Amino acid sequence: MAVYTQVDDAELIAFLATYDLGDLLSCKGIAEGVENSNYFLHTSAGSFILTLYEKRVAESDLPFFLGLMEHLAAQGVTCPQPVRNRQGAALGRLAGRPAVIVTFLDGYSVHHPEPLHCAALGEALARLHLAGAGFPLHRANALSVGAWRPLFAPAADRAGEVAAGLREIVEAQLDELEADWPRDLPGGVIHADLFPDNVFFLGERISGLIDFYFACVDAFAYDLAICLNAWCFDEQHNYAPQKGVALLDAYQRLRPLTRAEVDAFPLLARGAATRFLLTRYVDWLNVPEGALVRPKDPREYLARLRFHRTVSDLAGYGLAL
Amino acid sequence: MAVYTQVDDAELIAFLATYDLGDLLSCKGIAEGVENSNYFLHTSAGSFILTLYEKRVAESDLPFFLGLMEHLAAQGVTCPQPVRNRQGAALGRLAGRPAVIVTFLDGYSVHHPEPLHCAALGEALARLHLAGAGFPLHRANALSVGAWRPLFAPAADRAGEVAAGLREIVEAQLDELEADWPRDLPGGVIHADLFPDNVFFLGERISGLIDFYFACVDAFAYDLAICLNAWCFDEQHNYAPQKGVALLDAYQRLRPLTRAEVDAFPLLARGAATRFLLTRYVDWLNVPEGALVRPKDPREYLARLRFHRTVSDLAGYGLAL
Repeated sequence: MAVYTQVDDAELIAFLATYDLGDLLSCKGIAEGVENSNYFLHTSAGSFILTLYEKRVAESDLPFFLGLMEHLAAQGVTCPQPVRNRQGAALGRLAGRPAVIVTFLDGYSVHHPEPLHCAALGEALARLHLAGAGFPLHRANALSVGAWRPLFAPAADRAGEVAAGLREIVEAQLDELEADWPRDLPGGVIHADLFPDNVFFLGERISGLIDFYFACVDAFAYDLAICLNAWCFDEQHNYAPQKGVALLDAYQRLRPLTRAEVDAFPLLARGAATRFLLTRYVDWLNVPEGALVRPKDPREYLARLRFHRTVSDLAGYGLAL
Repeated sequence: MAVYTQVDDAELIAFLATYDLGDLLSCKGIAEGVENSNYFLHTSAGSFILTLYEKRVAESDLPFFLGLMEHLAAQGVTCPQPVRNRQGAALGRLAGRPAVIVTFLDGYSVHHPEPLHCAALGEALARLHLAGAGFPLHRANALSVGAWRPLFAPAADRAGEVAAGLREIVEAQLDELEADWPRDLPGGVIHADLFPDNVFFLGERISGLIDFYFACVDAFAYDLAICLNAWCFDEQHNYAPQKGVALLDAYQRLRPLTRAEVDAFPLLARGAATRFLLTRYVDWLNVPEGALVRPKDPREYLARLRFHRTVSDLAGYGLAL
C-alpha cells in the first residue's frame, strides 16, 4: 500500500492548468504502487493516473523511466503514457515532489494466475524485451548480485527470527551467486518487477503492464527468472510445472533462449529468489511495531530458493530438453 | 486512510455478474472513508464506487444508510446512489463482508474552505435537512451526549499526555452538557460528519455529499454546529467569523433557526467540539506505535472548545442579532 501525500485542491488545479487536460473533476488517492503516491485523476479530458514520486525513487532516474514508457508504447507495448504539459515536459512538480500524469489503463491484476495467464505473461515479457531495443538511455540494475550481500550482512544476525537456517542458506547462496553470476548473457531493458500486481488483464488477455520503477538494463533471462518466481508457484509455495512450462514456452516462441541462457537459468532463478528474499527480509525486520501495512513474507521466497537449489537444468522446471 | 480488504479478481467478477453493470474493467482501492474499504470500480457500464463494510459499521444500520441515500437523491440531493443487483437488492456480500456498489460522483474536497465554500455548505446542509423529511427509518445518534462520558472516563488518566488541562476542561464541559443538553429542538435526519472530506465541489459549486455512515436522527442545529466546527476555523484553529457568518446565513436563508435553536447554538457548538475532541483523543491514544496512519490531532478540537466556551450567543459567532 502506498504512502499518500495529501494534495491540496488549489495546488492541483494550478498544476493541471499547465496541461491541456481541461478541468479537474475528481482526484482520489489509490492503493497502487509501493514506492510512490498514486491518484486516480478524472478531468474533462478523461481518466489519468497522477504519480508523486516519494523519496525511494531517485529523481535522476525519472527520465529513464518516463522515456522508457514512451519508447515501449511507440513499439506497441501497452503501458501508461506520460502526458506532456504545454511546455512539452512530462515531469512536473506538485506538493514539493516530482510529479507526472500518465494515461489510465483499464485492466485488473490476477490474484491466482493459471497457466493461461502465465502463457500470456511469457508472450508479453518477450515483446517487452524485444521492444526495448534501441532505447538510448541506460540504468544499471541497482538490485543485482553486487547489492545483495551489502543488503544482508548488516541484518544477518536476526535471520533466525524469520526462519531457522535462513542465514546459512543465504550465505551459501551468495557465495555461489557472486562466484558464478553470468556477465555476458543477452540483455537490454528489463522490467525487473513484473509481479501479478503489475500486469493488467481483461479476461484472458493482458491489457497493459505498469510500474516501471525498477526497470533497468540487465540480462533478459534474469527478468524471465523473476517472473518464474513471481507467477509459477502455488499458494503453498510449491513450484507449479504447468505454469512454469506455459511461461517459458510462450516466451521462447517469440524469443528463444540461447544455449548460455538455458545453462544459466537455474542460477538466475536462484538469484531472483535471493533478491526478493533479501529485500522482503529487510523490509520485514524494519516494519514498525503495530504498523497497518503488513510487509510481504520473506519465507515465501526462502521456499522458492530451496526449490531452485534442487534444480540443475530446465528439465527441472518441467521442460522437455 | 481506509483499511483495505484485498478483493480477489475472480470473486469480484462473480459478484459483478449479479448486477447489470457489464464487464469488469478496473478496480482500485482508494483512500476515502475511514470506516470502510472503498474501491474505484470501472465497468463497461461506467464508473462506480464499491464499498466493503468493515467491522466499525453495524450491518443492521446499513438499510438506514442505503435507504437514506436513495431517499435524499429522490428529493434532489446529489449523493452516491446504491446500485441494485438483478434481484433488486442494494446490499450484497463480497470477500466475506457486506458490500454495495454506488454511483461515482465527480468533485473534489476543498482543503482550505473560504467563505464562499461555507455559504455553499450552509445551503446544502439546509437542503439536506429539508430533504430528509418523510424518510421512514430511524437511527439514534450513537455518538450523542450520553456516549461522551463513557468514551472519556476509561481514558481520562492519560489526558495530560495530550494537553495540559485537557482532563479538567472535558470533565467540566461534560457536566454542563449532560445537565443542559436540549431534548426538543427541531430535528430529523442529520449527516453528523459533514467535514470538508465529505463535500465535493466542482469550482465554487457543491457537486455532491458523501459518506452517510454517521447519519442519524438528531437535532438539525447540532448538525449545523458540527459544520461550524469543521469548516469555520483557520489553520491556527482560530474562529473565522466571515466563514461562520457565511455558513449560518446561507443555512438560514432556506431554514431559519427557531428561537430555541438560536439560544441553544453555543451549547451545541461546545457539544460538537467535545464529540470530535473525544473521538480523536481516544483514536490518538490507541494508535499503534510507528503506525503509518497518523490520527487526527485532538488538540484542534480542544482549541475550538476553548473558543466556544467564550461564546454566549450567536453574536459571539459574528452574527448581527
